[in-house]
Amino acid sequence: MIPRKVRIIEVGPRDGLQNEKKLVPTLSKIEFIKDLHAAGLSEIELTSFVRADRIPQLNDSAEVFSAVSKIDGLDLNKCPVLVPNMRGFENAISAGVKRVALFTATSEKFNKNNINCTIDESLKKLSAVAKECSKQNISIRGYISTVFGCPYEGKKTSGDLERIIKTLLDLGVDEISLGDTIGVATPRDIEKILDNVLQYTPTKKIAMHFHDTYSRALANVYASLKYGIAAYDTSAGGMGGCPYAKGASGNLATEDLISLLTELDIEHGVNLDLIVKASAKVLDGLGSNSLSKVHQVVANG
Amino acid sequence: MIPRKVRIIEVGPRDGLQNEKKLVPTLSKIEFIKDLHAAGLSEIELTSFVRADRIPQLNDSAEVFSAVSKIDGLDLNKCPVLVPNMRGFENAISAGVKRVALFTATSEKFNKNNINCTIDESLKKLSAVAKECSKQNISIRGYISTVFGCPYEGKKTSGDLERIIKTLLDLGVDEISLGDTIGVATPRDIEKILDNVLQYTPTKKIAMHFHDTYSRALANVYASLKYGIAAYDTSAGGMGGCPYAKGASGNLATEDLISLLTELDIEHGVNLDLIVKASAKVLDGLGSNSLSKVHQVVANG
Repeated sequence: MIPRKVRIIEVGPRDGLQNEKKLVPTLSKIEFIKDLHAAGLSEIELTSFVRADRIPQLNDSAEVFSAVSKIDGLDLNKCPVLVPNMRGFENAISAGVKRVALFTATSEKFNKNNINCTIDESLKKLSAVAKECSKQNISIRGYISTVFGCPYEGKKTSGDLERIIKTLLDLGVDEISLGDTIGVATPRDIEKILDNVLQYTPTKKIAMHFHDTYSRALANVYASLKYGIAAYDTSAGGMGGCPYAKGASGNLATEDLISLLTELDIEHGVNLDLIVKASAKVLDGLGSNSLSKVHQVVANG
Repeated sequence: MIPRKVRIIEVGPRDGLQNEKKLVPTLSKIEFIKDLHAAGLSEIELTSFVRADRIPQLNDSAEVFSAVSKIDGLDLNKCPVLVPNMRGFENAISAGVKRVALFTATSEKFNKNNINCTIDESLKKLSAVAKECSKQNISIRGYISTVFGCPYEGKKTSGDLERIIKTLLDLGVDEISLGDTIGVATPRDIEKILDNVLQYTPTKKIAMHFHDTYSRALANVYASLKYGIAAYDTSAGGMGGCPYAKGASGNLATEDLISLLTELDIEHGVNLDLIVKASAKVLDGLGSNSLSKVHQVVANG
């Protein structure tokens, strides 16, 4: 039942850096992506085409994308770029993006606060972008946030997960990443959600996106592995923190996942030491330390 | 299958502090134990009667024990004190100890390095102490270290776990704590070991002792909960670090376990905020920060 091979979708350059307050120089971002690719990661979320005033950290997305698209061996068809709306999509396409990530959430309040629209409105926007993708042969990854809890609504969110997933599948999204945005999920929640979701979704279309706010990310990974889920989003160094809890961890660290997978004899193709080096370089620049325990052990070892 | 109620055995004052290099003043230790008890913990490993030159941090064990034995409501029959040998046992008994913790390991090399004897020799010593306990009506908790891996022998250790457990049970040990001394266990290892151990050991006699070196402690807790295991050793603040990996986490933090149990609706009777306050006080004195993610969120929240 546990998969013999797992895909790691590295979200550090986008989801990780996005939550870091101190700006990372463009050249460091480009080097970071090069390093991650050299460490064996082939699916890297490269950046996001958002309004510069909304997320200043990512206002150099066109420049970053242009530079990393020249990295030898990096397959842009496997590297999503986040786009929030049609305008972002158009900018991404102009830049040469081949795969986009679109997002919504299961919480009305989260969508309202995050992208100022209802779930239905967000699905409408997303649908318009998806139709363009289909015309232009651009593949789509879908994110659903707050699946296990919301900073505004708590653990039980207002939206209908099944309806959202089915809408995304109908729009041609080839993978849906279920996000535990605030890190509150327990393995029991994973079991409950996957028991339901896998009734109407092929297992190979589901990825899990965990945050390690309460140290439960790997417990949730193991619960997901038992359902055969073979795709996980991680951030090198566990970078990013959590905008909803001061001092808290953000995304599950790539290092922590790799270490567990190796110990479970699950193939992943990523070199742990090189990931530690890649993230340490960026963290040094930020003047911060990794919250990943595996990173600490390797870096100090 | 998952128990509705879990016992937490707080090992911070012994296992936690023992690995801290900076000496904690006796009065701070006493206050720490008072605070832990006030937070709802009823089973606290109070100290260890060891040779002062071996573990300077615990050379005030008689004084600490004498003071905390006056804490209103603290039941000494539930609070173990670690003793390495007959001499330690005699000192503990003179101090008024009612429950002792004895230990061995599944690794010949670990026992050799740690207590300078073979597994068989350690069981012999332990047996002599256990016989005295029985005569004097002292209850015994047993620790088995390196069950999932050893700093010297790796993941497959030389000793025969079944023989060690059966010996301890025959000696009248009422609980056996299975230790992942270096934090290398995965949930799959837990499943493998418990599938075996629970064939010859009553579930209620097994406790789990996890270290969070690679962030896997809670994943291992959840795997154990599924086997009905209802007793877990933790250390407030995750204090102690790991003597075998620089910069690494030590024992599973009490905070991290409590947070998971609460979310799973498993009764534990401990107040999270008070544990954070109790450990923060000691950590402040040590000039260090908690490596527990839950501690960080609560302390900064």
